Amino acid sequence: MVRLIATYALLIVVLGCPLRGTSQSHPRLLLGEEHITEIRAQLGQVPLFDSSLAKAKAEVDAAIAEGIQVPVPKDMAGGYTHEQHKKNFFMLQKAGAIFRITEEEKYAQYIRENLLAYAKLYPTLPIHPTDRSYATGKIFWQCLNDANWLVYVSQAYDCIYDWLPAAERQLIEKDLFRPFADFLSVENPQFYDRIHNHSTWGNAAVGMIGMVMGDEELIQRALYGLQENGHSGEKYDNDGGLIRLPGQKESGFLAQIDHAFSPDGYYTEGPYYQRYAIFPFMIFARSMANNLPEQGIFSYRDSLLIRSVSALLNQTNAVGEFFPINDAQKGMSYFSRELVTAVDISYYFGDQDPALLSVAADQGRVILDESGFAIAKDLAKGQALPFIRLSQELTDGAKGDEGALGIIRPKNTDEELCLLMKYTAQGLGHGHYDKLSFSYYDGGDEIMQDYGAARWVNIDQKAGGRYLKENKTWAKQSIAHNTLVVDEKSHFGGVFKVANANHSEPYLFVTDAKAYQLASAKEQNAYPGIEMHRTMIMLEDESLRRPLLIDIFRVTAAQNASQHQFDLPFYFQGQLMNSNFEYEISTTGPSVLGTSDGYQHLYQEAKGHSPQNTAWINCFNGEDFFTLYTAVDSTDELILARAGANDPLFNIRRDPALIVRKANQNQSVFLSALEMHGSYSPVTEIPLDPFGSLSGLEILWNDADYTVVRIQHQSGTTWTFCIANRNTDKEKEHSMIIDGKNLLWRGPTHLIKTPKDE
Amino acid sequence: MVRLIATYALLIVVLGCPLRGTSQSHPRLLLGEEHITEIRAQLGQVPLFDSSLAKAKAEVDAAIAEGIQVPVPKDMAGGYTHEQHKKNFFMLQKAGAIFRITEEEKYAQYIRENLLAYAKLYPTLPIHPTDRSYATGKIFWQCLNDANWLVYVSQAYDCIYDWLPAAERQLIEKDLFRPFADFLSVENPQFYDRIHNHSTWGNAAVGMIGMVMGDEELIQRALYGLQENGHSGEKYDNDGGLIRLPGQKESGFLAQIDHAFSPDGYYTEGPYYQRYAIFPFMIFARSMANNLPEQGIFSYRDSLLIRSVSALLNQTNAVGEFFPINDAQKGMSYFSRELVTAVDISYYFGDQDPALLSVAADQGRVILDESGFAIAKDLAKGQALPFIRLSQELTDGAKGDEGALGIIRPKNTDEELCLLMKYTAQGLGHGHYDKLSFSYYDGGDEIMQDYGAARWVNIDQKAGGRYLKENKTWAKQSIAHNTLVVDEKSHFGGVFKVANANHSEPYLFVTDAKAYQLASAKEQNAYPGIEMHRTMIMLEDESLRRPLLIDIFRVTAAQNASQHQFDLPFYFQGQLMNSNFEYEISTTGPSVLGTSDGYQHLYQEAKGHSPQNTAWINCFNGEDFFTLYTAVDSTDELILARAGANDPLFNIRRDPALIVRKANQNQSVFLSALEMHGSYSPVTEIPLDPFGSLSGLEILWNDADYTVVRIQHQSGTTWTFCIANRNTDKEKEHSMIIDGKNLLWRGPTHLIKTPKDE
Repeated sequence: MVRLIATYALLIVVLGCPLRGTSQSHPRLLLGEEHITEIRAQLGQVPLFDSSLAKAKAEVDAAIAEGIQVPVPKDMAGGYTHEQHKKNFFMLQKAGAIFRITEEEKYAQYIRENLLAYAKLYPTLPIHPTDRSYATGKIFWQCLNDANWLVYVSQAYDCIYDWLPAAERQLIEKDLFRPFADFLSVENPQFYDRIHNHSTWGNAAVGMIGMVMGDEELIQRALYGLQENGHSGEKYDNDGGLIRLPGQKESGFLAQIDHAFSPDGYYTEGPYYQRYAIFPFMIFARSMANNLPEQGIFSYRDSLLIRSVSALLNQTNAVGEFFPINDAQKGMSYFSRELVTAVDISYYFGDQDPALLSVAADQGRVILDESGFAIAKDLAKGQALPFIRLSQELTDGAKGDEGALGIIRPKNTDEELCLLMKYTAQGLGHGHYDKLSFSYYDGGDEIMQDYGAARWVNIDQKAGGRYLKENKTWAKQSIAHNTLVVDEKSHFGGVFKVANANHSEPYLFVTDAKAYQLASAKEQNAYPGIEMHRTMIMLEDESLRRPLLIDIFRVTAAQNASQHQFDLPFYFQGQLMNSNFEYEISTTGPSVLGTSDGYQHLYQEAKGHSPQNTAWINCFNGEDFFTLYTAVDSTDELILARAGANDPLFNIRRDPALIVRKANQNQSVFLSALEMHGSYSPVTEIPLDPFGSLSGLEILWNDADYTVVRIQHQSGTTWTFCIANRNTDKEKEHSMIIDGKNLLWRGPTHLIKTPKDE
Repeated sequence: MVRLIATYALLIVVLGCPLRGTSQSHPRLLLGEEHITEIRAQLGQVPLFDSSLAKAKAEVDAAIAEGIQVPVPKDMAGGYTHEQHKKNFFMLQKAGAIFRITEEEKYAQYIRENLLAYAKLYPTLPIHPTDRSYATGKIFWQCLNDANWLVYVSQAYDCIYDWLPAAERQLIEKDLFRPFADFLSVENPQFYDRIHNHSTWGNAAVGMIGMVMGDEELIQRALYGLQENGHSGEKYDNDGGLIRLPGQKESGFLAQIDHAFSPDGYYTEGPYYQRYAIFPFMIFARSMANNLPEQGIFSYRDSLLIRSVSALLNQTNAVGEFFPINDAQKGMSYFSRELVTAVDISYYFGDQDPALLSVAADQGRVILDESGFAIAKDLAKGQALPFIRLSQELTDGAKGDEGALGIIRPKNTDEELCLLMKYTAQGLGHGHYDKLSFSYYDGGDEIMQDYGAARWVNIDQKAGGRYLKENKTWAKQSIAHNTLVVDEKSHFGGVFKVANANHSEPYLFVTDAKAYQLASAKEQNAYPGIEMHRTMIMLEDESLRRPLLIDIFRVTAAQNASQHQFDLPFYFQGQLMNSNFEYEISTTGPSVLGTSDGYQHLYQEAKGHSPQNTAWINCFNGEDFFTLYTAVDSTDELILARAGANDPLFNIRRDPALIVRKANQNQSVFLSALEMHGSYSPVTEIPLDPFGSLSGLEILWNDADYTVVRIQHQSGTTWTFCIANRNTDKEKEHSMIIDGKNLLWRGPTHLIKTPKDE
């Protein structure tokens, strides 16, 4: 915080009072006078900043060589006019920073010419001819992209403000920026006044250009919204998200911070969208810190923005890819431009966490402002510490009381295994119907996958790069996830309004026991009258080659209700090697598993029953062997399924699953275990530990109060795990008689290891 | 050659005449006196040798710590006794080299104790209890593995020969090595006297232990075989390979070199097996160079062994993985121990090709002998030059007259595209029925794949790691490859004997034209009365974003014969993005495409027809976009297929294919083009050039003498390609009238580019 306080102090001392768009010199958003002297003096001495600057110059030089291109807007995403305007705003922002740093006038000239072209074009524009959005833009097909443009271009304008003749400033502000800001706000309240990432972009855009122009009205509009109620009522955006949240009274940037993040910095749509949303938050917060320091924006809500970046970084696998829960395209990672920006700003305006230096080094570039310079400089000084991902429960909901996301990673070894268990709220319009689902990683490899979205973002040949029909009919449905489905119907009947009004209940999150960590949560509302309770345990024990994942999924329906079919899928990522049960396949090809709720997109490739009480499949993912065990009785069905049925446009990946089906039941416990145990290289051709080491799983007890399970190792060692199902009191003593033995323990969970000779 | 000549000269000068197992000091196979002094003196100064030595020491130290384990043989591959004996021979060989280099006695002691244990065990052994091989071993289930053992352990014995008390030497030789060598040779002539990689191992094993023991009889037996004819007649090994080749008269190591490789150094089974076979060749050749220099083994057949290593390295994709033609497990690469050995020995005993230094650097380790030391030393001196893979046609057959493998890579850019076209002989027992098939790479990515073998080598849960049933029913069949299938029957009826008696005929291989390279070959025997002629052209042109692959597959049946169905599959590796033709899918799931010859393992996911004359599919492989075009008429069927039908043990990958079907025809031309054109990153989410740029393919002419095709670019540019179908004379002048224009050209092929405005 030292630097931050110093900066504030400087501003207050020099100027007497905070600036509100007065006559202070430009730039105001970034690279102010207090920073630029040091940066210019140290050029050539801070490698990561120097290389980032060189790369940006090469890009902008190439754009300059192509000439000014400001076409009349026409195309959707992927089309020429869309991509050109998008390229323009990226290049203009970079050109601004380069001009500020290098003082080479050709970059200012490039910005000037573009701005004059836009100022000439803008007054002629009706709304975008596509007219496909709930909030159609002028430059782009939606206001969101127009707001992107203004966030970037306001920075470019800021950097040449002092250089530009006053008459041209006046022209550009009158014909371009002020009407642009009004269009995004007062003319599109359904876009601007939401609690939603779209509005965050809108607020930031209006606020940043307001600061540059010294337009107090726009700044107030950015911070506090339109203060109107002209767009209330139940309306939805193009993605099915609510325009106005139930009970929403406030709007504007500060309200976004109040509502968008949980107290733990979790963003309810999930990390893929948090990555997108974090950018305008951080960029505008930087602008506020430089212009409205009295707001203390980075300290707001207990430094929520800083902690949100930290939460986001922790929602990545070992190679930096975000967990693809809800609507998310796989592969998005902390190498994205948004995260480079977020990490740099978070480092500089936060508490200079040395672990962020390692992330920045991995990212391999910094942004061209005072924060990028600071992080590159400290990195060059060798101040980096390793970035270590930890077990963490991130609460959901603005108040932190709407479920949570449980992340568990080994704590006794440096194994890069990671369990993600999802018991959050619905996640607004981008949420999936997958209460209590999980995914599991080994390094960068998905072992049990979350399917992610059915979408190829911006790829025109797949429905214009937008969400595919199968996103709704398949990817959002419960059966597409590693969670329980009752009677082949999705959670909440697949009805958004119902789902959005509910959330799961965290039950336990334990990371302080010696040999295990666990996440446990309940879901009471996905199916009326049915309680689901899942507990997932990561067991670390010297008897095991690698940490073991244990999964206890209890489902309880009212005893007098009709019988149910319970399906629990496991979307394993790998080739089936073998199994300990027999199954039948059809010689004429697979059948389709069902007719709706996602089942219509699943093939049944094989179906079997297990004569033994523990069924398993052994799999190989190209590098590692793993075995999935599940406790069954002889009537349970084991279905080897594959996604891709009724997929006329080949929009669904042909990924496999094992579905454990317990039919005609009122209550069941699905006890499963996932063991990572071996490896193989096609170069050495030597398999190491290709077989699982467990000999059986057993449910010793299950009722409303307690569940007790036993995991048996081939060595003879067993682990008995007990959980109290409705008492989380850490001091409460429990006693039971199991196998004729008295079990006594204190607190909600208990693990007993019995070595082979006992 | 300088060092090699110097070495020979030294031996001849010092010893007067070549050694033949006389009283010279040991070791004789490697690390002789003339090398060891320099190596010992420079320890710590040659990084790659030092790190390789340190790694080997760590491995052997761990093995020593585990204690001597010489169990009574019992298990198949994957089982304990198999894996332990295998580990033993690897560790003993390394221990020998380490002892020789470091003179630390614990390594000699470790070898001594193992040898005494083996000498005690061996006389008690009957043949291995599994008795599943055509040549069952004693230590292992097959003689092949016993020969592996002896090749490695003879080196270990060599390194401690002088250190070991004479009485123990006598014991070990009497009870272990001499009977071991006899067992592999005179007691198993069906194993020892073949022209086959099994016998190469046997010859090398017998020869190497002969050299160490000074046993002239064994050395002669290694070089010239058993000189018997006791095992003639038509017999097959476990993989269906012939025990004795037709007309085979010779055997022994020199005969292997005469018969195993083509004059270009190609090994008829393909690079996966060449990788395996090359090891005993190089190891025994090193032993011969050090003991029988008058044989000039590395100069034999115009330095064939050295050129064979070079050919093998050129049969890799951009990340060093071998082309998986015939029976081959994908992922095997030049990082394997066999290739480390081959590269080091080839460098040292060959002409010190500085490109091999780059390969060694990439491999990251060297073997612990004089050759590994030499390559590491020269690498440390900075003598490496880049290793550049080139276009090359590798003839098949001992005389080079049994077909060939065509490899084409861009020559005008550093693009890592690679076309592999296969018009070889059958490839013995491991051959696939895929005359004129091809595969295509972009860097390390398969774009059009060769399926490889249906096998997980050494992975016990998949049929003991051996070939799966589906290797025969699917992987070997013609329809599993990117080549033409007539009437749903595999080439040669899938009959090995017929296939093995035939080979394709190379027609043209052009690499000296300016804008294109091509491979062209004919197959007359796969289907009686039907000629297949495929020409594959890599076009490099400034109008194209990336090089373009053009594929002209002509098939001609006798005019008076019955009509045929011609199927040409393309196993594209990627997700189907879109197509320009419509197709139908079944809502109840895919059907099975056929009943035999591999068709029973294919699902038909969709079937369509194209209203346009050029049908295309656009695909994305996670990084790149590509488009496959094919010229069709409205009756042609376009089948979107997927492997995996009738696969009860999940032994087949669910990989997709487009099958172009022309039915009721006597002659057809399949004209196709494959364009790599774009890319996409899930981090930037910006697609670059996602669409193909060709507007059409057209067959302008086809008869017995000429084929003329035209490729149309969206820009209006066209390329017209002409090929004379039965005259390869470079001076011959051809003339035709096409589209009313006179075409005149000289030589068998001709390309005309017509810019858009002509």
